Amino acid sequence: MPFEDIDTPALIVDLDAFERNLRKMAEAAAGAGVRFRPHAKTHKSPVIARRQMALGAVGVCCQKVSEAEILVAGGVDDVLVSNQVIGASKIARLAALARQARLGVCVDDLGNVTELAEAAHRFGAPLDVLVEIDIGMGRCGVPPGAPALKLAEAIVRTNVLRFAGLQAYHGSAQHIRKHADRREAIARAAELAASTAQRIRKAGIACDTITGAGTGTYEFEASSGVYTELQAGSYIFMDADYARNLEADGSTFRRFEHALFVLTSVMSRAVPGRAVVDAGLKASSVDSGLPEPWQLAGARYVGASDEHGVLEFTGRAPAALALGRKIMLVPGHCDPTVNLHDWYVGVRGLAGKSPHVETLWPVAARGAGF
Amino acid sequence: MPFEDIDTPALIVDLDAFERNLRKMAEAAAGAGVRFRPHAKTHKSPVIARRQMALGAVGVCCQKVSEAEILVAGGVDDVLVSNQVIGASKIARLAALARQARLGVCVDDLGNVTELAEAAHRFGAPLDVLVEIDIGMGRCGVPPGAPALKLAEAIVRTNVLRFAGLQAYHGSAQHIRKHADRREAIARAAELAASTAQRIRKAGIACDTITGAGTGTYEFEASSGVYTELQAGSYIFMDADYARNLEADGSTFRRFEHALFVLTSVMSRAVPGRAVVDAGLKASSVDSGLPEPWQLAGARYVGASDEHGVLEFTGRAPAALALGRKIMLVPGHCDPTVNLHDWYVGVRGLAGKSPHVETLWPVAARGAGF
Repeated sequence: MPFEDIDTPALIVDLDAFERNLRKMAEAAAGAGVRFRPHAKTHKSPVIARRQMALGAVGVCCQKVSEAEILVAGGVDDVLVSNQVIGASKIARLAALARQARLGVCVDDLGNVTELAEAAHRFGAPLDVLVEIDIGMGRCGVPPGAPALKLAEAIVRTNVLRFAGLQAYHGSAQHIRKHADRREAIARAAELAASTAQRIRKAGIACDTITGAGTGTYEFEASSGVYTELQAGSYIFMDADYARNLEADGSTFRRFEHALFVLTSVMSRAVPGRAVVDAGLKASSVDSGLPEPWQLAGARYVGASDEHGVLEFTGRAPAALALGRKIMLVPGHCDPTVNLHDWYVGVRGLAGKSPHVETLWPVAARGAGF
Repeated sequence: MPFEDIDTPALIVDLDAFERNLRKMAEAAAGAGVRFRPHAKTHKSPVIARRQMALGAVGVCCQKVSEAEILVAGGVDDVLVSNQVIGASKIARLAALARQARLGVCVDDLGNVTELAEAAHRFGAPLDVLVEIDIGMGRCGVPPGAPALKLAEAIVRTNVLRFAGLQAYHGSAQHIRKHADRREAIARAAELAASTAQRIRKAGIACDTITGAGTGTYEFEASSGVYTELQAGSYIFMDADYARNLEADGSTFRRFEHALFVLTSVMSRAVPGRAVVDAGLKASSVDSGLPEPWQLAGARYVGASDEHGVLEFTGRAPAALALGRKIMLVPGHCDPTVNLHDWYVGVRGLAGKSPHVETLWPVAARGAGF
């Protein structure tokens, strides 16, 4: 099917750029000698997870038990829920799933450790448990140091859970614009993770894995000598927000290519200076900024309502932008944008003369929130 | 099933409040002597559409052909696509659907009229066509006056499309905070709609329907003597953003009750002043502001990431807010929040002592963007 026949709005993957991104990060992790466990909350797709593992990833991360269920059902055999799993129902599902695949989970609460141990015992399933430490993000996780040791000791005492190490993800560092500031944030995070791991090891407990990192900071965790595993996810697609980060030389962060787009059609040209497109809040998440028109000089996406996007132009709108004309948008934030769609439309040869649809992939874990 | 057994995150409808909202708006429209055609883009559910029609609505609106298909399949026999339908594929689907139910559509382009006429002829299906005029919103629609007449004449000339009237929705007026300013915006809109209708009638063309209005302004369109049909949708659920509107006496807009909630669980209490809940960007849309904790004094939802929400408190977080404790959030914007979920969980007796799940309704048109 030719590219121009795709109906809109549609979630497009530029397969060529996507595959270059896949390889680039796999090589970066291998080159740094750290394990790579990409975050599947970006793509919500066992197909993509398996391709990441085929290039050397040890497994993937996700945030919810329902995501893990869908990944395992799709053939992924090593999943870390890089998040707390709370409540009897979700814990039972997690333990049941651990019979089918290697499963890990994070904790920041003693009572939660007890509940996980009971479920792991009941289901006869091993479970890797990491202690999440808050190394600067201000979300989940116990403070580094003594509180983390206390939890590690509790995990070891259960005799049924395996203490696997530390979850030390610094989410808010990912979008710090200046390279030096990101480096500094991760240097502090790595220090806190290292001293916590040392404390745990001094207590006679092995602390093999220190896992974290995202697309904005992976280079610092990779070279830290502390982190043993990287969790970057967005690198496969790159969104407009990540593209606002800066490199050390002040240039914008372009080491990965935009590979995810929302294809949209012009649906109203009733006013000369304006074009309205058929992709709004239901097609592109705006939590990290509006989507940006791709390769459409002078155009700005200035407003999103549920089913409409308004484009304005420097000067007059191009006459070529007639009703039905399709344009591509780079989403502001890839993860929640993917979550709005049921399918990826994988396009080959987008930079060439006859781009075409090569594959459709379901966004299998779309809406998987439990 | 008792309320406390609902797993989270979940999209909750307080059925008692919802039904009061349904009746209140139906009575307001009947009292004003105008037709009511509520907007189904809010709920995306044929079940709810049929309940609105059982209380007197003449039909519903939606924005996309795919929504119309799902509504008609669900037993709704009168649907206005209050939007432009562009492109051969979507137009053919619209015309095919018009064989099964009364269908209307809006136009703001002459070429689009020609394409619609060809499809209506080919499918042998009648189609109501309204001319959309831009009466202040700055989105779709031709300017009022001569451009609208030109389109109406073109519709009549097709001999196959029925010119039904004017679509005159003022979306940006809905959230103007001051009552007098909303009134003023709709007074201007009604003037423009009236003069346009008059111009069309002078040309010998009947212009029966002038349709528009939303939850923020319906009272003004209803009493305008110009509008013949109201399209309000959000009134059934009320979101946090609408609750920031003001009444004439300066009080907040409380004539409809919050009936839509995201139920969420506390999943991390690792730090005294903070509680992290399991509802973030994938559970509640933040385009019109963050969700607000419901009946939880001193709590503020201060940050959303994909799967997490961070609550902060005036003073210390309540000790009762233990892990697993469930709280309700009022979404910032109901329409795109509904679009994140697959099911409504309808709860009866939420204000009483033993609230329970009475029904599950699918969000049948979730993701219907085509």
